[in-house]
Amino acid sequence: MSFCVVDGDGADITFKPIKGHPFEEPVYTGKEYGPDEVKLLAPMLPSKILLIGRNYADHVEEVFKKTASTLPPTLFMKPPTSVIGPGAPIRIPEFAHNVEFEGELAFVISKPCKNVKRDEWKSYVLGLTIINDVTDRDLQFSEGQWTVGKGIDTFCPMGPWIDTDLDSFDLEDLGIKGHLTHEGSTTTYQDSRTSQMIWGFGEILEYISRTMTLLPGDVISTGSPAGTRQMVDGDIITIEVEGLGQLRNKVVNA
Amino acid sequence: MSFCVVDGDGADITFKPIKGHPFEEPVYTGKEYGPDEVKLLAPMLPSKILLIGRNYADHVEEVFKKTASTLPPTLFMKPPTSVIGPGAPIRIPEFAHNVEFEGELAFVISKPCKNVKRDEWKSYVLGLTIINDVTDRDLQFSEGQWTVGKGIDTFCPMGPWIDTDLDSFDLEDLGIKGHLTHEGSTTTYQDSRTSQMIWGFGEILEYISRTMTLLPGDVISTGSPAGTRQMVDGDIITIEVEGLGQLRNKVVNA
Repeated sequence: MSFCVVDGDGADITFKPIKGHPFEEPVYTGKEYGPDEVKLLAPMLPSKILLIGRNYADHVEEVFKKTASTLPPTLFMKPPTSVIGPGAPIRIPEFAHNVEFEGELAFVISKPCKNVKRDEWKSYVLGLTIINDVTDRDLQFSEGQWTVGKGIDTFCPMGPWIDTDLDSFDLEDLGIKGHLTHEGSTTTYQDSRTSQMIWGFGEILEYISRTMTLLPGDVISTGSPAGTRQMVDGDIITIEVEGLGQLRNKVVNA
Repeated sequence: MSFCVVDGDGADITFKPIKGHPFEEPVYTGKEYGPDEVKLLAPMLPSKILLIGRNYADHVEEVFKKTASTLPPTLFMKPPTSVIGPGAPIRIPEFAHNVEFEGELAFVISKPCKNVKRDEWKSYVLGLTIINDVTDRDLQFSEGQWTVGKGIDTFCPMGPWIDTDLDSFDLEDLGIKGHLTHEGSTTTYQDSRTSQMIWGFGEILEYISRTMTLLPGDVISTGSPAGTRQMVDGDIITIEVEGLGQLRNKVVNA
């Protein structure tokens, strides 16, 4: 098991293992692997996974039956034990009856920080990744607090990697999609853009970092657009962010 | 900095540093210190801090203005970065205007576990400790999710140690008190017993561990009794659990 630098695109992609950790200049081992020779794990094991709830107005309306102006964004956490990598199964336990996917764009913290000003957010970010904020909608609302409904083991797929080239993205208007494959037929239920976010990246980091110290590897997810749907045993969920890749996981009953 | 075994009572207390970690039989270094020779830190750096909200009926009524039967217990988390040890200052940031203490009895997980049956809870517990679940009551309710109101840096005092002799406690009826010292005058606002808990230790561990895998060092707090009060710069908060000791922290403006 090793951190790798991922180079190239499509079929030409290569995985180059590095020594040490990914928060410093990479020191290569000299080995190199093709996409069929590696099994990707979650790209980070964060000490904190912080997520913004209600950051896309259309999702606020579909789930909370309110307008975003009456119900502002909020902060919640998923436990580190909920993280799985691309390709690993999302396992639905017996007591969860209404489990939905929520495709989200996330960023990874690069160095310890507190009280970051919004304009300086990029200085503290290693790169972007994708999160599927899997949620049992019934438990989310029956509990009031979202820890159980969103914190179940395997309910935080993350990946496929961390893209560190922030400047290669049009962050203000990036496409984000969530596809559900059910019995062989694929439907795109989430289809939005980061231009629909209520709080931008800088505002989110300013808001969270005035509350708590962030550490390298902490993951911050920027919220789910509308279109979340229930998924069941046998389904495949693919979350896609423009220029970043796809995070795909199968759903099974635990 | 070292883990220590704490032996004895009162003035005869001694601190014996150990090699390695506290989840195995202690191997002593042979050194020994008195209470004036050590500075206690938080007894654990947990990967998860899980807390039960609304587990004392009287606290449900005072804070939520509802009866416990209409508003059952719920689960939430505090981030690891909120932990401080005994004696360290609780720092109130400028944006928090209504910060209260909540004295709670907590237990520490000893080994990885999932789906623990309630009768077997003691097999997975290293010992008991005290938590002060410091909370900004305004942010708790304006946010909806409690992560900001309860997750601020320094808002999770923990200690003074972990008492591993579970059988020395009358767990069904243990006294728990919260004292507030304001301008030199001390008032006991929390004064309750574990007999008032809605869910017992075993039920709590069964409920949490069906949702998520627990790891050694994870801390589970069993809820706050009534009597929480606002605290301000200069106050001292002392949380006391019968037979376990006292957790004392000063309050300062950040």
